[in-house]
Amino acid sequence: MSSQLGQLFRISTFGESHGGGVGVVIDGCPPLIELSEADLQVELDRRRPGQSEVTTPRNEADQCEILSGTFEGKTLGSPIAILVRNKDHRPDAYSEMAEKYRPSHADYTYDAKYGTRNWQGGGRSSARETIGRVAAAAIAKKVLAHFYPQLETLAWVKSIQEIQANVDPLTVSAQTIESNIVRTGDPRVAETMIERIKNIRSEGNSVGGIIECVVRGCPPGLGEPVFDRLEADLAKGMLSLPATKGFEIGSGFEGTLLKGSEHNDHFYMEDQRVRTRTNRSGGVQGGISNGEAISFRVAFKPTATIMSSQPTVSKERQETELKGRGRHDACVLPRAVPMVEAMANLVLCDHLLRHRAFCSGCED
Amino acid sequence: MSSQLGQLFRISTFGESHGGGVGVVIDGCPPLIELSEADLQVELDRRRPGQSEVTTPRNEADQCEILSGTFEGKTLGSPIAILVRNKDHRPDAYSEMAEKYRPSHADYTYDAKYGTRNWQGGGRSSARETIGRVAAAAIAKKVLAHFYPQLETLAWVKSIQEIQANVDPLTVSAQTIESNIVRTGDPRVAETMIERIKNIRSEGNSVGGIIECVVRGCPPGLGEPVFDRLEADLAKGMLSLPATKGFEIGSGFEGTLLKGSEHNDHFYMEDQRVRTRTNRSGGVQGGISNGEAISFRVAFKPTATIMSSQPTVSKERQETELKGRGRHDACVLPRAVPMVEAMANLVLCDHLLRHRAFCSGCED
Amino acid sequence: MSSQLGQLFRISTFGESHGGGVGVVIDGCPPLIELSEADLQVELDRRRPGQSEVTTPRNEADQCEILSGTFEGKTLGSPIAILVRNKDHRPDAYSEMAEKYRPSHADYTYDAKYGTRNWQGGGRSSARETIGRVAAAAIAKKVLAHFYPQLETLAWVKSIQEIQANVDPLTVSAQTIESNIVRTGDPRVAETMIERIKNIRSEGNSVGGIIECVVRGCPPGLGEPVFDRLEADLAKGMLSLPATKGFEIGSGFEGTLLKGSEHNDHFYMEDQRVRTRTNRSGGVQGGISNGEAISFRVAFKPTATIMSSQPTVSKERQETELKGRGRHDACVLPRAVPMVEAMANLVLCDHLLRHRAFCSGCED
Amino acid sequence: MSSQLGQLFRISTFGESHGGGVGVVIDGCPPLIELSEADLQVELDRRRPGQSEVTTPRNEADQCEILSGTFEGKTLGSPIAILVRNKDHRPDAYSEMAEKYRPSHADYTYDAKYGTRNWQGGGRSSARETIGRVAAAAIAKKVLAHFYPQLETLAWVKSIQEIQANVDPLTVSAQTIESNIVRTGDPRVAETMIERIKNIRSEGNSVGGIIECVVRGCPPGLGEPVFDRLEADLAKGMLSLPATKGFEIGSGFEGTLLKGSEHNDHFYMEDQRVRTRTNRSGGVQGGISNGEAISFRVAFKPTATIMSSQPTVSKERQETELKGRGRHDACVLPRAVPMVEAMANLVLCDHLLRHRAFCSGCED
Repeated sequence: MSSQLGQLFRISTFGESHGGGVGVVIDGCPPLIELSEADLQVELDRRRPGQSEVTTPRNEADQCEILSGTFEGKTLGSPIAILVRNKDHRPDAYSEMAEKYRPSHADYTYDAKYGTRNWQGGGRSSARETIGRVAAAAIAKKVLAHFYPQLETLAWVKSIQEIQANVDPLTVSAQTIESNIVRTGDPRVAETMIERIKNIRSEGNSVGGIIECVVRGCPPGLGEPVFDRLEADLAKGMLSLPATKGFEIGSGFEGTLLKGSEHNDHFYMEDQRVRTRTNRSGGVQGGISNGEAISFRVAFKPTATIMSSQPTVSKERQETELKGRGRHDACVLPRAVPMVEAMANLVLCDHLLRHRAFCSGCED
Repeated sequence: MSSQLGQLFRISTFGESHGGGVGVVIDGCPPLIELSEADLQVELDRRRPGQSEVTTPRNEADQCEILSGTFEGKTLGSPIAILVRNKDHRPDAYSEMAEKYRPSHADYTYDAKYGTRNWQGGGRSSARETIGRVAAAAIAKKVLAHFYPQLETLAWVKSIQEIQANVDPLTVSAQTIESNIVRTGDPRVAETMIERIKNIRSEGNSVGGIIECVVRGCPPGLGEPVFDRLEADLAKGMLSLPATKGFEIGSGFEGTLLKGSEHNDHFYMEDQRVRTRTNRSGGVQGGISNGEAISFRVAFKPTATIMSSQPTVSKERQETELKGRGRHDACVLPRAVPMVEAMANLVLCDHLLRHRAFCSGCED
Repeated sequence: MSSQLGQLFRISTFGESHGGGVGVVIDGCPPLIELSEADLQVELDRRRPGQSEVTTPRNEADQCEILSGTFEGKTLGSPIAILVRNKDHRPDAYSEMAEKYRPSHADYTYDAKYGTRNWQGGGRSSARETIGRVAAAAIAKKVLAHFYPQLETLAWVKSIQEIQANVDPLTVSAQTIESNIVRTGDPRVAETMIERIKNIRSEGNSVGGIIECVVRGCPPGLGEPVFDRLEADLAKGMLSLPATKGFEIGSGFEGTLLKGSEHNDHFYMEDQRVRTRTNRSGGVQGGISNGEAISFRVAFKPTATIMSSQPTVSKERQETELKGRGRHDACVLPRAVPMVEAMANLVLCDHLLRHRAFCSGCED
Repeated sequence: MSSQLGQLFRISTFGESHGGGVGVVIDGCPPLIELSEADLQVELDRRRPGQSEVTTPRNEADQCEILSGTFEGKTLGSPIAILVRNKDHRPDAYSEMAEKYRPSHADYTYDAKYGTRNWQGGGRSSARETIGRVAAAAIAKKVLAHFYPQLETLAWVKSIQEIQANVDPLTVSAQTIESNIVRTGDPRVAETMIERIKNIRSEGNSVGGIIECVVRGCPPGLGEPVFDRLEADLAKGMLSLPATKGFEIGSGFEGTLLKGSEHNDHFYMEDQRVRTRTNRSGGVQGGISNGEAISFRVAFKPTATIMSSQPTVSKERQETELKGRGRHDACVLPRAVPMVEAMANLVLCDHLLRHRAFCSGCED
């Protein structure tokens, strides 16, 4: 059950990059939520390869089909299965990888664990697996909108290598982020980032960076201590994405430099709501949302597959060299932006349902 | 089920800082593992308050009792329940906190979520809850030792504010870490760190820092993609600890500055084992351990409870001021070192059992 | 996690018949439910040995202690841990059972599975384990009463061997059932049943029978197809009790003799509620409660431990004979009545919370 | 997560009788098990409608496609998704059922729970959902065969109304059962059963009966007390099938008539194995398999949908009449035989993996 996430809004993704297709089953979506394939496709289109000149040239339409769980345009409360067929197969591009392990990729560890792997295009470890997550999260987003109409989740590229975006999480808009193909929230650095990615790609090399995410309009009360603290589940969701190396919320690693008196967020009252003057907590205190903006950052390493020769070993335990082939993103971040939003919405939707089960109505 | 962790080695912690006691039930411990209360007590003693001059002066023996699950010195395979009685009750010290929310603490969010809280000493959000985790992890450690005798998990204080320890994760020893009361792996900076904590405490203030952890001797193959990747479960485990704000593995956030060609870990053969020349992956690739040392870092914010007056609001939604009372750690890190080790061992033990269920014997 | 039951109202029982004690942790109880130890004790007293002349003469007070999860008389929303100490230890009575397997008891299979067992008094397989269930179910009952004040769960002895009680599930009262020590709902046969049990016990033999249970006042909508159908979870709960051999709901096995036209429950309207004229469905259709009385029966075999010599084998695989010793119920049914009620309430409470999470509020 | 079953070998079924299709995702299948679509199809063909003159005349090929999780003829260890398209759509046949509730069917309760339902052909409550179970169980069977080559699961029709088959669970063969279209294990009554079903169908009526199942060659040790006792999980699995009303194992309800001395199964030694002289335990003691044949029975009510007019109510809460239309089985038992085997194999496979995780290797 390692391809499942969520306690109540539970998703099960399936599929390898090559084979019949990839997809997801969502078990636990409330009934009577309006839902169509178009709702999913808009998010899948933000994730798909070939969408711009800073992503892989593989061109896959990633057209989804809802197989079950809806009727007359609304959810039934039964499992929703979604399928995206695999199309652009080029197993030949991967034949060398059947025998040699790509450095810092999942090739060796999959073989070590399972004794087998689908070496075509990364198989199960391919980022193509995230199609199921993004499709499921599009539904999570609709459920969240049903119960919390004011909630909004936005992610953007915060940095590419040392190039930093300057973004105000409280005011940045989806429109701004989508206005540039690198999906940074700071249009002034967009062109610099794009140039960097293009240059690195032309060298056959790759780069990483940081994605920032904010959830605005989340009410207080989401999060389930002690283990399913909201930040713990967000951290898990983010670190389950390929190529991630770190997660921090609110003040994060920088916050360790401050004293308590500098770090604490003072409470005050505004419009009969409890608010904090600062938000070093990142919108979560004691594992539970406090009504302020939830803000966190995720580190993505440079793509492992590069187009220059590297020392490695073969399946038969011989030392050898491998030069990447195939069509890969030189930088995953522009396409990872919708993935980060997806994981955030999946976690929040699950916590929304858990909170409803447990904490509503007892005060009556 | 928010106080449960683990799929197969599943722990359920219980207890508030004030009340009958705190503890844990472990469901899923294999039978025939040697186990005594002394095995647990040694780890609980590293966690307990009052153990040194850099921890809170509260002096609690935290003596544990195994209520079930063992017989004639070995585990039975049935649930192991462990109880530590609460002793050093001083509810009076907390009476003001019944009415006023401590800034950046869990007081407000618990009220917002549950409509109630045990305001004595932090209640469920108290670090006292981690007693159950540390006790359970002492058992996890014995299970790990049974199946992987060479596995060793060590954590240490990497930094207090800007004071950095210089530690080699491959060679640092438990003896070195335990040789100083701040539990840094670099004895040369221990005294500086201790002085900083004492000074800050004398100001009624608090500090945070970073804890680093290494797991040496973990075989390849642990981790369950796609969601239960090893680093995802480690991240969740760490972010479920009180006062944590960030997690990074291997190259972490710094790694985002490198190119792929600089970041990739090249494979080579050593003694018929697949090894990597560098370890920017942090011992995990594609969500699965690769046999190298697993290394990660956790950010802890400065303690929220400080001894100076801060603006806040009351339960009745009035703006007011609150000055901390009671006996609190000015810096949680020395006592958090065994907690970080505990979470790592809990995650690894669960993954060990999952791997055994799923992946062994099929190749026959 | 085999000692856990429930998805949202999740209980974890622990303890062997000999050792520190037995108990339970409930993770998922909503906050603000009034709760005291007296609420639990009343149910535990119905379950305890030594309560009447048709139960085992072992006299155990089974006094419970709530260790956590409540504050000022109400639940906190955090895990509720409950402990009952073991008292009346007589390991000597069991020394022969350390070596020889009681026929039709759990002795052999526990050894075969775990390679060890606590042979004192049945260890984990002792009915003493159900203390945790009964205590947890007393809390489930309070949660159910909070949300569904009209709901009432009643069980009674339907038969002892061939002695049948004639009971109307729609009108039988707790008072009637508790008016006789065998806990049948038909006082006219109570004395006959009591005599049978006493006679059988005086022979050193044992008897079984059938317990019937009804849940009145359950609203339509509980049950989660396709796997967690209400009758499926009830069946599991009941068959998880020691000594059970069968479960049937509504028309049960007898219903297989009817034609569809005879078996179907016709719908009609009463006071703006959808009702059925008959109730062969047993209150559940398509896995979901339909608002009629939920009624089912559970078969209990005669107690395995009898006071006459029987052929068996030893731990060392030698054929031998064993004559039961110790103090055992010659008939478990009078004490199993509160256990059946307990399992029903645990299942219903879990389904109540699941339904609230999932299905309420979407129609708005 | 109500459409999921299993802790380690976890299946998630999806799909309504009308819509894109039905299927299943299996998460937790070990790697390197040989698997092809033909392995699944043989079981699906035993389940499919239109296979014989005692099943519904609906003719659906139910051709399956494996979408993921296999490579070069073997399992990968990743989720296996299986899809069967819906073909023989006749929504018109169901239009009256959109408005009127079929007595003793799931129509009313689905509406009461979800506020909506796919009324075409039963939607999610259709027996068509069991396609996913049967396909998943074909894989479970292969996993069981890999680890326990001697294990064999067989089910057969034990009775149709009062017509009883006389079958020896220890010797009955798949060949005998499949030799007659009603799938009884006693060919002497097959024709009588077939005649009964045909006659009842010609009246527009329906019948039920009892299916018996045996698992031979299961080693001792499977089952996880206290809640996941083997018989408890079998009971749940069986009662999760449509139209089931009861489950009993071993001596079952009849066993309540015996005394302990008559009921107990005496142990003896045979070929260095612990055996029992009788098997009233049904192969399970204390919730754990004891190495004897596991045998149990499941009661199926007469099909709810009949072709004569019955009183009922409409969605608008008006009393009315409804006469069944469409093509339905007058008796579900011949097609339920593979479903019962499927549920048994799913439960056993899950317990096999759980046992491996937990109990193997500790004795070293």
